[in-house]
Amino acid sequence: MSYVAKRFQHVQAGLTLDADALSRYTDLIDLSIGDTDFVTDSRIIEAAYRDALGGATRYGFPQGDPELIYAIQTAWREDFGQDVPKDEVIVTASSCLGMYLALTAILDPGDEALVISPYFALYKQQIEMNGGVCVEVPTYEADGWSLRPEALRAAVTPRTKAIIFNNPANPTGKAFTMDDMRLIADVAKENDLLVLADEIYTRYLYKGVFVPMRTLPGMEARTVTLNSFSKNFMMTGWRVGFIIAPREIVDAIGYANGAMIYTAPSVSQRAAIRALSLREEIRETYITRYKNRVFYATERINTIPYMTLVPPMGTFYLFPGIKKTGLSSAEFAKTALEKAHVLVSPGGVFGKTGEGHVRIACTAKTEQLKEAFDRLSALKFGV
Amino acid sequence: MSYVAKRFQHVQAGLTLDADALSRYTDLIDLSIGDTDFVTDSRIIEAAYRDALGGATRYGFPQGDPELIYAIQTAWREDFGQDVPKDEVIVTASSCLGMYLALTAILDPGDEALVISPYFALYKQQIEMNGGVCVEVPTYEADGWSLRPEALRAAVTPRTKAIIFNNPANPTGKAFTMDDMRLIADVAKENDLLVLADEIYTRYLYKGVFVPMRTLPGMEARTVTLNSFSKNFMMTGWRVGFIIAPREIVDAIGYANGAMIYTAPSVSQRAAIRALSLREEIRETYITRYKNRVFYATERINTIPYMTLVPPMGTFYLFPGIKKTGLSSAEFAKTALEKAHVLVSPGGVFGKTGEGHVRIACTAKTEQLKEAFDRLSALKFGV
Repeated sequence: MSYVAKRFQHVQAGLTLDADALSRYTDLIDLSIGDTDFVTDSRIIEAAYRDALGGATRYGFPQGDPELIYAIQTAWREDFGQDVPKDEVIVTASSCLGMYLALTAILDPGDEALVISPYFALYKQQIEMNGGVCVEVPTYEADGWSLRPEALRAAVTPRTKAIIFNNPANPTGKAFTMDDMRLIADVAKENDLLVLADEIYTRYLYKGVFVPMRTLPGMEARTVTLNSFSKNFMMTGWRVGFIIAPREIVDAIGYANGAMIYTAPSVSQRAAIRALSLREEIRETYITRYKNRVFYATERINTIPYMTLVPPMGTFYLFPGIKKTGLSSAEFAKTALEKAHVLVSPGGVFGKTGEGHVRIACTAKTEQLKEAFDRLSALKFGV
Repeated sequence: MSYVAKRFQHVQAGLTLDADALSRYTDLIDLSIGDTDFVTDSRIIEAAYRDALGGATRYGFPQGDPELIYAIQTAWREDFGQDVPKDEVIVTASSCLGMYLALTAILDPGDEALVISPYFALYKQQIEMNGGVCVEVPTYEADGWSLRPEALRAAVTPRTKAIIFNNPANPTGKAFTMDDMRLIADVAKENDLLVLADEIYTRYLYKGVFVPMRTLPGMEARTVTLNSFSKNFMMTGWRVGFIIAPREIVDAIGYANGAMIYTAPSVSQRAAIRALSLREEIRETYITRYKNRVFYATERINTIPYMTLVPPMGTFYLFPGIKKTGLSSAEFAKTALEKAHVLVSPGGVFGKTGEGHVRIACTAKTEQLKEAFDRLSALKFGV
């Protein structure tokens, strides 16, 4: 007889670090996890240290450090030309927790949330843990992962509560066009839906100017914007992000946040304040390096006969097709691990149309990427 | 029409910072919140800073920094003479989140969890958000807040899944006797229940030696131990705690943790490693100061004719009775705020037998406590 709640008695491991694989091969190159290989900029660490010594080691306000909220409001106005009232901002201990809290705040049992598939695998777990139903809106490599209007409209039912919209997108590296965004906004308005806009890769857009969902006409009232310092500022380990949403939703999130964790880490919030002040420089210094890696990896993939690829437009992920190998994505990942000692994520975990692909995170140095692609290029599948 | 889930549409504010009261009176003395007024020991901050610069700014292992897990195992063995396998430890982003995760991991809808009332108010919110039912086991000031065996046994039903046991206890300052603990262990074994042992005030025991619930015979297999660096190490703002539990439960908690927040803050975990190495010194330096405050406040309360008090044995809280004033706890708190500019927590939020009391957190310096009690002593109620 188990003490564990029934829903957890038969769960499968999600998308997480494969500690076993990491220990099996000493020359393993890990391209599976979305963590930065850069250490946080030392000026950010210095600021956190100084403020901790100065007393920022206590709880502080549950909604977030007022100086951080002010810095978020200021940066949002400067970057996107939109005023955000302070009651519509809440700091969260990561955007991962932010999305969980947003779903907790809005989902009644049986409510449906749409995800644009392939999608960040955690969304499904988070929706289901909150009593909701995850409904996939498929996109296809052949379409360049663009949204098909009829597929989006067909997925809406009377139980649909929200569309989760990750832009730029993990795992595909897709940056959605203004047409895609207007389509989502229109469908949300026509059906009175919320859009949970997961914009944590904001600064990883390799072409064009990033447009947040909440800046589209009429979308402020129905957008929950999720943002984070993890990816944009190389701060994954600090666990700090923020949400911008209508007051009513921020209040419900605040209630749930208070019951779950009370507040985000104070020291990390001080680090985040400094990070925001350095945002242009950080982008220039670090994100440019990611861009170079992504473009290098793209060139290499384009020379591998068994792979196909939609040119990436954002994030640090690539999502090549491996259908020509005749293997499933899990089989390919196993082969890449055992024969090339390269760890990639099988596309099947990212949704139905993710099958036949693998996710490659360019979170290793270019020399390592070179070695990884040398090894992957040497693999032979009857093609 | 609201976008918020039905269960959050009519919630009352829980036990949280009264920002409005804080801003209303410039000479307000806040004795309402369980946050330390000490800054974290500078050696702990230094260690976090050094390790952050050295690269501890990334995710790390979801279960927790292996060095921290090892330090927890070592400290537990040294302090309590019990070996804990590393698979039975998980680091959490606060013990608040730890308790939430533990309830998520074990409760099926409608399962009952017992709380020893008066109890930390958040337990009820956390149980209910996880679909469970909070059942109060009353204790009384007249009994010195001791457990009545018949009250505990009467609360058990076929739906009871766990007993939440906070020792030493917030808000009463009660340290339970070995007889109380054996009673809980016996009832748990007789009815195949888990004990969620919230032991975050371990080091605030002012008499005797602390005995963790899991060290009682046969209790390892049915105890979920919750501990934290917040109170024991003056680290509330770092958000780091840990759970020790049977492997099956740690695995389910790990799954839920992965879906909610992925991992605890890395920098805070490095701070926690240093904190554990300083634990005897921290206790000597800081906890002695709290003890002095608590004893001072006790003396003062004993001279106030409208208050009654069970002598405190642990934590930094006092829970005096105010029934002689003829006011409810909410009315008394309002009067104390408006007439004495002293903020205390009304006892009613801590459960049925908390009504008629107020909670005083000795988290202000002795001079401030003196001023607060001078003002409270001057209040007149027809007694």
